[in-house]
This record gives sequence, C-alpha cells and structure tokens, in this order.
Amino acid sequence: MSTTIQDVARHAGVSVSTVSNVLNGRTDRMRPETLARVQAAIAALQFRPSKLAQQLKTGQTPLLGLLVPSLTNPMYGYMAREIEAYAQQQYGYRLLIGSTYRDRQKEQAFFDDLLAHGVRRVIVISSLADERHFESAVERGMAVVSYDRGATPGKRSRVWHVMPDNFEAARLATRHLVERGHRRLAFATVAGMTMSRSAKIDGFHAAAEEAGLRGEAEVLDGGALDEYGDAMIAEVGRATAQRLAAMDPRPTGVVALNDLMAIGLMAGLREAGLEVPRDISVVGMDGIYLGALSNPALSTVQLPVPEMTRAMVDRAMQPEAPNDTTQIDQVFAPERLVQRESVAAPPARQRAAKATNDEEKTAP
Amino acid sequence: MSTTIQDVARHAGVSVSTVSNVLNGRTDRMRPETLARVQAAIAALQFRPSKLAQQLKTGQTPLLGLLVPSLTNPMYGYMAREIEAYAQQQYGYRLLIGSTYRDRQKEQAFFDDLLAHGVRRVIVISSLADERHFESAVERGMAVVSYDRGATPGKRSRVWHVMPDNFEAARLATRHLVERGHRRLAFATVAGMTMSRSAKIDGFHAAAEEAGLRGEAEVLDGGALDEYGDAMIAEVGRATAQRLAAMDPRPTGVVALNDLMAIGLMAGLREAGLEVPRDISVVGMDGIYLGALSNPALSTVQLPVPEMTRAMVDRAMQPEAPNDTTQIDQVFAPERLVQRESVAAPPARQRAAKATNDEEKTAP
Repeated sequence: MSTTIQDVARHAGVSVSTVSNVLNGRTDRMRPETLARVQAAIAALQFRPSKLAQQLKTGQTPLLGLLVPSLTNPMYGYMAREIEAYAQQQYGYRLLIGSTYRDRQKEQAFFDDLLAHGVRRVIVISSLADERHFESAVERGMAVVSYDRGATPGKRSRVWHVMPDNFEAARLATRHLVERGHRRLAFATVAGMTMSRSAKIDGFHAAAEEAGLRGEAEVLDGGALDEYGDAMIAEVGRATAQRLAAMDPRPTGVVALNDLMAIGLMAGLREAGLEVPRDISVVGMDGIYLGALSNPALSTVQLPVPEMTRAMVDRAMQPEAPNDTTQIDQVFAPERLVQRESVAAPPARQRAAKATNDEEKTAP
Repeated sequence: MSTTIQDVARHAGVSVSTVSNVLNGRTDRMRPETLARVQAAIAALQFRPSKLAQQLKTGQTPLLGLLVPSLTNPMYGYMAREIEAYAQQQYGYRLLIGSTYRDRQKEQAFFDDLLAHGVRRVIVISSLADERHFESAVERGMAVVSYDRGATPGKRSRVWHVMPDNFEAARLATRHLVERGHRRLAFATVAGMTMSRSAKIDGFHAAAEEAGLRGEAEVLDGGALDEYGDAMIAEVGRATAQRLAAMDPRPTGVVALNDLMAIGLMAGLREAGLEVPRDISVVGMDGIYLGALSNPALSTVQLPVPEMTRAMVDRAMQPEAPNDTTQIDQVFAPERLVQRESVAAPPARQRAAKATNDEEKTAP
C-alpha cells in the first residue's frame, strides 16, 4: 500500500540511488531535469521517506516524551502547550505524552515504552517518587529532564533538573499577606511531600518568621489525591476550606499550594459562608489564565513558564547527559506577584478602617 | 550501547532463534531450563525487543495520534486524559499528541509526521477546516476519527465521525432559560463556523422558536480566536460581556458556546458591573469540573465524555476504515442539564417576586 523509494525511482525513470540523493539533499551535481522528474514523482506518489528506517539506523526518533501528573490540571496543559510549540519550532520534535498520576510504576512503564519506540529524550513533570528509575533510564541512553525537583541532596545524578524558585514563590505570596496586615497565616497543601512542596512550605515559614509570626503560621494538609491525581487538587482545596471555616481562631490569610488548589479553596470558602477577601484572603502560585477569570480574581505568584519550558526542551536535546550533578542545575527567578482581588486587609483591620472612615464621615 | 537479541543469545548460551521464540511466546515445546536461562539473560541485560524492528515489518506503531485545538482548553485536557487512559488500558497504545489551533496546515503537517513515524491511527478533535486532508490520510493507510463534526452532507467519506448531539445540547440549555422565564435570549459564540457550532446555534433557535421567541433570540459572534486558539475562547467571552452589557434592551439569558466561554463571559459581566444570575443568567455546555468551582457555579449541559472518547478510540482501532459513509456515524445522547447557580429568573420577574414577598412580609 505505501509507496517505496523503488516506486519513486520507477515512476521517475531513474535509479534508487538518484532518488536517495534527492531525499538527502545531494542535488548539486544533478541535472535540473532529473531533479525535477524525481520531485514530480515524489509529489505524484505522495511519497514520504520512512522515518522508521532512519530511526533503525540512528536508534533515535524525533519524538520528545512528556510525562505529566495529569492533563486535567490546566497548569500542565499550559506547560505542555509551551513545550510542544518550542520543541516543534526549534527542533522539529513532536510530543509523546503520558499522564502518570505521580505513580512510580506508571512512570517506569512509560520509560520502557519510550525506549522501545526509540524515543531518547524525555521531560518528567513533578515526580513524587525518588529518581532511581530516571537514573536507570539515563544509563540506557536517554536524556531525562526532571521538572520541579532538584537532585537528591548529596547524591550524584545524571538527570537534568529544572525548577522554579519555589521557596521564593511561597515567600513572596506570604509576604504579600503580611504586608496587608495578616497575622494569622495558613498554607494549604495536599498529602505527600515533593521537593517543590517542601520548598514552598519552607518559604512560607521563612516569611512568617521574618514577620515574627512563626507561631501563627500553620500548614494545613488537606489529604491525599486519588487516582485522578492533580485534577483533584481543587477538591482537596474545597475540603480544606471547610476545615479552615471551623478553626478558632481562624487564619485570615491563606497561601495555596498552587492556583488550582486556590480556586477550589475559594469555592469551598464560599460554600462555608465566608467571603473572599472580606473574611479571608487567598494567594495562589502558578499563574494559569483561569486565575484571572475567577470571582474574585485570584492574586497569585506568576512562575516564568515560557523560560522554564524552553530550558527543559533545550536540556532534553543536549547530546550528552550532564556529568554527575550533585546540586540543582537551574533555578528560575524572578517570580512575579500578580495582585488581583483575592487579598485584602484582614477582617479586624477592615472593621477598624471602616470605623475610622465612618468617624471621618460623621465628623463635621 | 543498547542490547541486541544477539547479546541475549550469547549471554544465555542459546541460539538467536531460541531467544526470538521466547520473545514471541513460542515456549510450549521449550525445555524449562532453557526458558529460564533466556529469561534470566533478558533480565540481566535489561533487554527490550526493539519495537522499531517490529514496526518496520508491520508498518505500524502502537501509538495513537491525537490532535486537539489547544491543550489549554480544559475540555481537551479532560478528553485527552480519557482517551489516553482507555487507549492504554484497552489496547496498550500511547498518545502522540499535537495542538493544531484549528489550522489546516498544522493538521496536514501532523498527519505527515504521523505517517512517517509509522502511526496509523489518529483522532482529530474539532477541525475547523474541511476534511479533504483527512480523506487523503485514509487513502494513505490511516484510520482517522473526526470528533465533533459529521461528514459533509451528501459527500461520501471514509473517515469515522463521532460527535455529541450538539443541537440537543443547545436546545436543552436554551429551554432551561425559557423555563425560568427568560424572554430575551442570546447565544454567545466565536467567529468561524464549525459543524458543531452551527448545530448548537440551530438548537438555540429551535428552542426559541418553540417558545415563540424567534425574534428575541440573538447570536452574538464575539470575534476570531488568535493563534492560541481555544484558550482565548474565555477572552472572547469576556469581550462579548462588554457588548452584552451595552445592549438595550439587554438579553437576560445567555447560552455560551462552551463552558470555558461561559466562565470568561461571567468574568466580563462582573467587570461590567452586572451580577450573575441576578442581572443576567448564563448556561454553558461541556461539563468541565472547573464549572463547578466558578462563582457563581456554572449551570451547564454535561456531554457524555467517557462514552464519546471510548467510541473514538474503538473506532480508531478498527482494522478497516468505514465503507463510504454519507452521514453522521454516531451521535451520543442524552446530554444532561446540570443546574447550579448561574441561572435565575430574569430581573423583571425577580422584582415582581420581591414586591410580592415584601407585600407578604408587611401584610399583618
């Protein structure tokens, strides 16, 4: 059914090696009529040289593997789009994509399939598991880029690591609450510690400490994600809101693990009869476009997604794995605070401010 | 670097054909010790039989191509996840994914690359273009499933078509507004007519006509999407809200093309100083989980996504293309109205109801 190089040669009335020369750009010593005849035959027969045959020679396929926790978290949809566009435009690579739900066995199975398909370059977003299976993939000839976690401290690694400055992102978010006058702070997260989650919690604590609020800064662990993984982060946020509403004294300012969790948290607070930001302020991290559409619009820390995704693709395309890195390879800064509507002064202050206003108004 | 079948044979002290027999499950006449030795060698050398070599024989790769307008529309993230899970579990296929931004040339380039990679099965979500390049892909040996558009009426086609009942979805959404008392209706869409968009507009008009409101049912075309495609649908919704706010008389009930547009529309209405549903009611279509988290929570028509995505994968895996269909192959019903918070009685009615309430309250 499919056209072969022999068919093209026959159609053009030339030898197979002449067609091969055309396909490989060796046309400088070819007669223009011959070249035109071969090109016409290629067009007429809709001939595509088999990349499979080329792959067998090189053992490589112009496919980039991309593992995400779940495509239903819009942050990963956003990153996947950026990775796809850059890999395609800059390197001519397509994406072979998989969802892992942060499950080690799913990751391992995907690596095996990539290798079997001749794919030698892969980006893994946010693995929960340790990275021994990544290292073993590097040994089998893959270039592996791991997003959002550094190499295990003190351990040598041949995996590329790209991550934002999660510590600084959370510190920025927390400082914003402190500056608006909040004194009872919470950090809303999910069960299961990743390196990025723990860096965010550290940043949260650091900002609280700077403000002398270490004792007033609480981490709320909203429970585990189910098999659907990151899509459920919004639901965990929603459940955490119920817990928050019942607390006494209640935190007045909350930093959410990411934007999707913040959106779920705001929905849950509303269900619990609390108004954001009047009763409680919320800050997210990520900068997905949906945050601008929420009601109230979400204040958040914008991560440098285009820069990070480009760095990941560039690293995945390196001919050699890095030479035993023992530390984080690349951290991106600066993140940027985007102020929208979900943060205000805490309730007590608002009342004080309102009282002052009222006094001013009634003053003669 | 990578292990060959020869290495395994050498390591196990058997012939290459014995290893090949093990790999292909022809072990019933093999001595158990031989089998064990080969298996041990495969494990020790971490040998994976090359799928590339197998592909060259069959010309097929266990990869399913998936083309979506944009991964940043959460509806396509949702569908991609369902397609991936089912294709993996039921057929052992991985996804090779691409965004097309509904651009014909991007679609064509993706088909070319799929063919070159030996991929013979592809699902295309919501193409704006005509389907001649799909038909040509079928002729070159691909199984093509086209989502959300029927075959061109009266034209024979060898492309599978799977789509929800878009007409009925829009009719359900519009009827819901009519039943709540709305008499001035609008349908918010984007520029560019796809088959699904035109079916939705027909459903909107049909419901308006049933209610004797054909003259009061207006289609608002919010302009074209830019290169980022469907992520921008929310922005088009936001802009449409400004237009709506300025209309006099203003529609009181709006059906949005899909949930993402409805979410953008609600954000825009809020910016224009209108409250949903007090001043204006909004219904979406799709049923993405983010609709449940919006404020107000979005009333919508839930499409049967798991059923549709399974049907698409099953069709893509058929050994033969359909035999010249001339009509829509499969329509899924029923859709289901999900009532949340974004629909209420129109303002005039609310005032009347409030007046009645107040009278009752002040009555002795």
